[in-house]
Amino acid sequence: MTLDRSPATRRAFVSVGDMVDLPLVVSVPEPDYAEALADLDGVDPIVWDMERPHPRGRDIRFAVMPYMTRLGLADVTRGLDALEVVQLQSAGYEQFVGELPEGVTLCNAAGVHDASTAELALTLTLASIRHVPEFVTSQGRAQWAPLRLRPALADRRVLVVGYGRIGRAIARRFAPFEVTLTAVASRAREGDELVPQVHGIGDLPELVAHHDVVVVIVPLTDATRGLFDASLLGRMPDGALLVNVARGPVVDTDALVAECSTGRLQAALDVTDPEPLPEDHPLWTTPGVLITPHVGGATEAMRPRAIALVRRQVQALLAGRSVDNAVAGPLSAP
Amino acid sequence: MTLDRSPATRRAFVSVGDMVDLPLVVSVPEPDYAEALADLDGVDPIVWDMERPHPRGRDIRFAVMPYMTRLGLADVTRGLDALEVVQLQSAGYEQFVGELPEGVTLCNAAGVHDASTAELALTLTLASIRHVPEFVTSQGRAQWAPLRLRPALADRRVLVVGYGRIGRAIARRFAPFEVTLTAVASRAREGDELVPQVHGIGDLPELVAHHDVVVVIVPLTDATRGLFDASLLGRMPDGALLVNVARGPVVDTDALVAECSTGRLQAALDVTDPEPLPEDHPLWTTPGVLITPHVGGATEAMRPRAIALVRRQVQALLAGRSVDNAVAGPLSAP
Repeated sequence: MTLDRSPATRRAFVSVGDMVDLPLVVSVPEPDYAEALADLDGVDPIVWDMERPHPRGRDIRFAVMPYMTRLGLADVTRGLDALEVVQLQSAGYEQFVGELPEGVTLCNAAGVHDASTAELALTLTLASIRHVPEFVTSQGRAQWAPLRLRPALADRRVLVVGYGRIGRAIARRFAPFEVTLTAVASRAREGDELVPQVHGIGDLPELVAHHDVVVVIVPLTDATRGLFDASLLGRMPDGALLVNVARGPVVDTDALVAECSTGRLQAALDVTDPEPLPEDHPLWTTPGVLITPHVGGATEAMRPRAIALVRRQVQALLAGRSVDNAVAGPLSAP
Repeated sequence: MTLDRSPATRRAFVSVGDMVDLPLVVSVPEPDYAEALADLDGVDPIVWDMERPHPRGRDIRFAVMPYMTRLGLADVTRGLDALEVVQLQSAGYEQFVGELPEGVTLCNAAGVHDASTAELALTLTLASIRHVPEFVTSQGRAQWAPLRLRPALADRRVLVVGYGRIGRAIARRFAPFEVTLTAVASRAREGDELVPQVHGIGDLPELVAHHDVVVVIVPLTDATRGLFDASLLGRMPDGALLVNVARGPVVDTDALVAECSTGRLQAALDVTDPEPLPEDHPLWTTPGVLITPHVGGATEAMRPRAIALVRRQVQALLAGRSVDNAVAGPLSAP
């Protein structure tokens, strides 16, 4: 018999279970990913960091890219004749789409970084409101700051701008802090167990005026670039805190520096524009601004979640089900 | 008629409602407390900071102490012949018991600082684990730290040592962070919606060995003084974090400095022993130690909660019900 090597046919073969003698070859970047697949019948995991061609490259049907890689898809997929799916470990995927080979599906890692990013949103909020930067500085001087009533998160009105997976993960973590939670998304919809309703983006100017903490977790698109401009920032109440765990260009940096310089607003930013922030940028020394260097998603929490995703995807392929998170290629939604 | 001025009789009078012409005079330290009582029939709130005798002192039956006061009860209660209840705004009350006049009940402010203290426990934990002190220092140098996988709270095993009101408030805030929660109290008991069971203190040595984050919120007693000594700290796993929002002397400072100096453990402390920490104390510069200057309860979140407590207490007195939080005097439990 001649073996039809087209991905679609292969998947069909596997899905009806009549090619058990031909295992699903999966390349993973590190050994612990391979171990997590070891108990799956019909899977042949190989460890490949993609730096050099792999001797079994032509057998690989599911390839997991390393995290934080500078590799391009065109290079790593060369000679991978059986390739069906490339699995990224980042949520961002735009830079890979142009190099995606014909017939190959690209999957991103939506969900893998949610816990880590949501956790950082709370970290930034709490550290700012509870004056951690001041205490770190006092500690460096061996100074015990005098007792006075300081701010707390409790009783604040918290607005989550962007209510996808990470936005909900953020809201879930805020919920037990005795705050009032409001959510905004691109379109208005019904609420959930955390918020009574999800507002549409059109309500944003009105909403920011009545919230003490505004957490931004929208994707960067033409619609969100510069969303927090001088006008919107100017509507935030005195003393309010802007937390950005989305992308730097969602906020107008100059306008933010202006509002924080006067002490009217505060900001806690995991992302900036430009990024990395050059040494002479005024944001570094603007009062009331806490900066973390884009560390939201890059934590040890991602590894077990990435491994779990790879395992689910491989099981889906084995069972002939569709993979999750397909963002480009034949298996992605039109 | 002769007016029996003994507190018990007065309460009885009010409780049967036949002395409506004699309002319950309540002294409060600030005007917003008085405003919160303004709508209660039969209450006459007066603002008194207790610094000098008040002209209507002899009418006061319910007196609210200022927060963070150095005043002694013997001085402020002199001439307060009608006094029935002194309401503190702190949870700690031991220093007032000795000066409590005969027949007067002392109430502490248990509950008022829960949200604020629990919130700080999360702040300290997240700031430590997510490297906020390092980023504050980098920001001071205008340096963007290079990207690498860093720790996260997600997936950690969190042990809450002390499971009263604040311990539960802490557990409630940790719950959505995708952690494993364990609770220890002085005695073992059934669990709640947050933990499957509450361990007894006897399990502590075994439990600390299997937890990555240990949050201490026990009261300071003879049994808890020095509880976290070299032996118990030595049982914590490598890389674990000790968070102390209880009282400084619950932890052996020298032993903690020793464990953190090697980099084996980390600590985040809102309380220290001694306190305040003198300028030349080694704890200030011990690696992996984050110190806040006992700011757990002293936040703006306490004010609405203190006002709500005062209102509940006054309503209880008006209705002839027992007051909450009675810790000494005739209305306290034996």
